Amino acid sequence: RVNGDRLWDMLEEMAKIGPGIAGGNNRQTLTDEDGEGRHLFKRWCEDAGMTVSTDKMGTMFATRAGTDPDAFPVYIGSHLDTQPTGGKYDGVLGVLAGLEVVRSMNDLGVKTKHPVVVTNWANEEGARFAPAMLASGVFAGVHSLDYAYSRKDPDGKTYGEELKRIGWLGDEEVGARKMHAYFEYHIEQGPILEAEQKQIGVVTHCQGLWWLEFTLTGKEAHTGSTPMDRRVNAGLAFGRILELVQDVAMAEQPGAVAGVGQAFFSPNSRNVLPGKVVFTVDMRTPTQEKLDRMREKIEAGAIEICEALGVGCAVEAVGHFDPVTFDPVLVGRVRDAAVKLGYSHLDIISGAGHDACWAARLAPSTMIFCPCVDGVSHNEAEEISKDWAAAGCDVLLHAVLETAEI
Amino acid sequence: RVNGDRLWDMLEEMAKIGPGIAGGNNRQTLTDEDGEGRHLFKRWCEDAGMTVSTDKMGTMFATRAGTDPDAFPVYIGSHLDTQPTGGKYDGVLGVLAGLEVVRSMNDLGVKTKHPVVVTNWANEEGARFAPAMLASGVFAGVHSLDYAYSRKDPDGKTYGEELKRIGWLGDEEVGARKMHAYFEYHIEQGPILEAEQKQIGVVTHCQGLWWLEFTLTGKEAHTGSTPMDRRVNAGLAFGRILELVQDVAMAEQPGAVAGVGQAFFSPNSRNVLPGKVVFTVDMRTPTQEKLDRMREKIEAGAIEICEALGVGCAVEAVGHFDPVTFDPVLVGRVRDAAVKLGYSHLDIISGAGHDACWAARLAPSTMIFCPCVDGVSHNEAEEISKDWAAAGCDVLLHAVLETAEI
Ligand SMILES: NC(=O)NCCC(=O)O
Ligand SMILES: NC(=O)NCCC(=O)O
Repeated sequence: RVNGDRLWDMLEEMAKIGPGIAGGNNRQTLTDEDGEGRHLFKRWCEDAGMTVSTDKMGTMFATRAGTDPDAFPVYIGSHLDTQPTGGKYDGVLGVLAGLEVVRSMNDLGVKTKHPVVVTNWANEEGARFAPAMLASGVFAGVHSLDYAYSRKDPDGKTYGEELKRIGWLGDEEVGARKMHAYFEYHIEQGPILEAEQKQIGVVTHCQGLWWLEFTLTGKEAHTGSTPMDRRVNAGLAFGRILELVQDVAMAEQPGAVAGVGQAFFSPNSRNVLPGKVVFTVDMRTPTQEKLDRMREKIEAGAIEICEALGVGCAVEAVGHFDPVTFDPVLVGRVRDAAVKLGYSHLDIISGAGHDACWAARLAPSTMIFCPCVDGVSHNEAEEISKDWAAAGCDVLLHAVLETAEI
Repeated sequence: RVNGDRLWDMLEEMAKIGPGIAGGNNRQTLTDEDGEGRHLFKRWCEDAGMTVSTDKMGTMFATRAGTDPDAFPVYIGSHLDTQPTGGKYDGVLGVLAGLEVVRSMNDLGVKTKHPVVVTNWANEEGARFAPAMLASGVFAGVHSLDYAYSRKDPDGKTYGEELKRIGWLGDEEVGARKMHAYFEYHIEQGPILEAEQKQIGVVTHCQGLWWLEFTLTGKEAHTGSTPMDRRVNAGLAFGRILELVQDVAMAEQPGAVAGVGQAFFSPNSRNVLPGKVVFTVDMRTPTQEKLDRMREKIEAGAIEICEALGVGCAVEAVGHFDPVTFDPVLVGRVRDAAVKLGYSHLDIISGAGHDACWAARLAPSTMIFCPCVDGVSHNEAEEISKDWAAAGCDVLLHAVLETAEI
């Protein structure tokens, strides 16, 4: 078993960097706080005897050597970046649990054939720079490095500039490494495990996603002196699309979600009808067919709404992954480890996207979930217990040892 | 008749300060650009022989002396501040036309019994600091100075701080002056005069207004892993309220408008359901009874929508004025001047709010409108012709001379 107290102490220590305003964290990608968190992680890894290198996307790889010089490594990865109002565990748990697995192996004096690499993927959240899972996407060859570098935050700063600015532009080519297997341990970010009173989520699949960024073009006009019948009201079109998004998701129940988290009115003045409204629709479902249908319905419906109001409607896909089926062998190892350790468990589909979704294109991959209180995530109030954190880390240790071969 | 070319040159010159991005202006209240515009105006006034003083709200008063030391002045006022994407004439025309009236009087060697004061009211637009017509509101005793100083822009900077920062905090007590009469010349900001091919709008009334700022409180949650039936979706509530606002205005046709120009999602991240949505509803109509009914319907309807979704709903009135009836004697003088000068004219109700609405509480007041192309305003594309500008200024000159007594 791992050292649950040590894992918890690391989580607490990391949470001091980039505190939020309500007990959580704001350690967004490529901010100074992200840089500081990386330094702390690097120091801990080196103290644990690992070698740390960084690639051109800023992803950090901490390696514990294996006994066979030709064996590809087993990766344990997740992310240290957070949402603007993020929790202390989303992502962080997976990275620090990887480190705790290595520390436990050190304590036990265990050697493995395959090296074990603990990975901190850059820009998993996609909050500052869309899309999410950007660095793992480049690693998997889904995005080009140029595309990634050119992604802009809401202030217009690019990923490339900011990566250099915080001093974490590495020299390793992105995606040059080979993987034997990939594990990711994460909080569920949903309510199921807690409701079913299970300690371990054996993650079999991940929902597919589309992020559609809409730019609605109305006509800036005075809210007082512009008669109702002369308005080209992009705000009203936005309101109708919000309802449409809800309707489309409800029509695909169960097993589908859609919503809007981000919206910008322009010029955003109380007495000016918006000339422009930009927003992103997030839609997800585990079924490829449903995913395609939702996208179609939302795109076509939005265009129809806008046409009826004379509002311009441009749509750009700023994020996408297909539904993922994780590797049955690794999934089996996670389930077996839970059984062996006496932890209650449940097969589960991931509602959120994870770097594991891109890693799954390169090598056998899977995930382990622990419960989180009330399913709350992407919220500073995100909470888990020390025992939950430790149980998943135990399962991770056993599944990794099985795969890295003692 | 006034010198239309000279007026036009001043308009062009002022428009060079705080240029927008599409041919208009961004010279928002208490920005550096606002400060620069004020200096130019002050210089022009002093060149025309006027004395300029500034009050504690930053409103500028340029006085041309009268012959009777006991006579209260006739005011010609409007504003030099603009929307973030504002036009070159909204407000500016009224101030510079006042100056052109004085220049014409100088050219003609005319003396009046009453002094003539050209006024640049601070923060008319209310774009940066709500409510609109803030300085004239304090002048009329509707708002306290403390209230005004504490108003915040979206970055949290206060009116008081910013007024000091740009160096235009004057020492004159706000509202200490007496008024004999108040005139305001403005572009219509609506489509009626142009459609009816009239040169002069004789403004008889102004619509009343409510600005209601709503704060919707949802639950920040992951857009992917939060099932539809567990969402407390403030964004969806906002969408429904946008539709409600439209419905309420349509039910009160003709002669009523309502819309939303400003909205903020928080934390505004693509994969976080908004924990908070803050937005302002702008509603207007010339009828007191309708105004009250619209406010009631929108408030009650919004609360109902939010309750059904479990979303919190707080409402604050951040702007209000009752419908205004302008002074029949002054209105008659404007109409007579148009007739005398041979300009086509039409009685009209102002759709926008103006400082004249507050001045009307203190002294006989009225307004003159000129057409604007396609009714477009609060848009950089706002356009008028030199002839239109001059015609209204002619009418202003005659009505002012009649009132200030030669
Ligand atoms: N796990 C997680 O929240 N990842 C961010 C990408 C997503 O929105 O699913
Ligand atoms: N005239 C004008 O646009 N004033 C701003 C206040 C309002 O919204 O009516």
